[in-house]
Amino acid sequence: MKAKIFFITLAVEDLGRSLAFYRDGLGWPTEGIVGQEFHDEVTGADGTIVIFTLDGGLLLTLYERANLAKDASLPPGPPSSTEFSLGIPAGSREEVDQLLAQARAAGATLTAPAHMRPFGVYSGYFADPDGHLFEIAWNPGQSGQ
Amino acid sequence: MKAKIFFITLAVEDLGRSLAFYRDGLGWPTEGIVGQEFHDEVTGADGTIVIFTLDGGLLLTLYERANLAKDASLPPGPPSSTEFSLGIPAGSREEVDQLLAQARAAGATLTAPAHMRPFGVYSGYFADPDGHLFEIAWNPGQSGQ
Repeated sequence: MKAKIFFITLAVEDLGRSLAFYRDGLGWPTEGIVGQEFHDEVTGADGTIVIFTLDGGLLLTLYERANLAKDASLPPGPPSSTEFSLGIPAGSREEVDQLLAQARAAGATLTAPAHMRPFGVYSGYFADPDGHLFEIAWNPGQSGQ
Repeated sequence: MKAKIFFITLAVEDLGRSLAFYRDGLGWPTEGIVGQEFHDEVTGADGTIVIFTLDGGLLLTLYERANLAKDASLPPGPPSSTEFSLGIPAGSREEVDQLLAQARAAGATLTAPAHMRPFGVYSGYFADPDGHLFEIAWNPGQSGQ
């Protein structure tokens, strides 16, 4: 199996709230809510979705939790923040702190102050409006992220 | 904030089990379990982790749920399959079915047979040993994924 992931779908409770957080708060590029015309007769899922095209072509999509559950033919599970995290690169220690502050201003929750990890990465986490975890990280040993 | 995600961390219950699933079952490249020497005195998290380097440089890391929770300064939440899904590309309808069968043979659960979605993508989901969702998808309108 090709070792490739080309999209990340986040389950959200309120598509408009999450669109505002990522587009207006973080400044990420999107055409907004699309796919309203699609309904899957097999699963019952609606196609309404928000797609962000990230650097490198990776897609981040926002999809209502009830639709993701239908799309995957599973019952909706409880919200849980410790299933995964997504890493956002920063170019310096100061930028980590700045970006965390930007996320908080946009409506994120900071779980703790950023700090230097024992493996040499300075990072801190924020939780988006649905509790999904992001880690903003600066690795002094790498550049060009 | 730069619109970039450079790693995806999955919370897992058993690092060895998940390593076997992704490395031996799916065939994804990794150096195995690393970082055992690191312990974060601030959070109590151990650094023990598995890192897969995917096409395009995106990193997929496996991290014990208890460590992710400590690392993010949150209490561990319940497992929940409908928080997110990750998309794996396929080159044809047949390949979608073949890759889902490969995942099942490796220990994944298929939630339903693949089918053609109303927006023109043929896809099906599998859940990894921790219930994390992946969607294997073929989009006839695109190539080179």
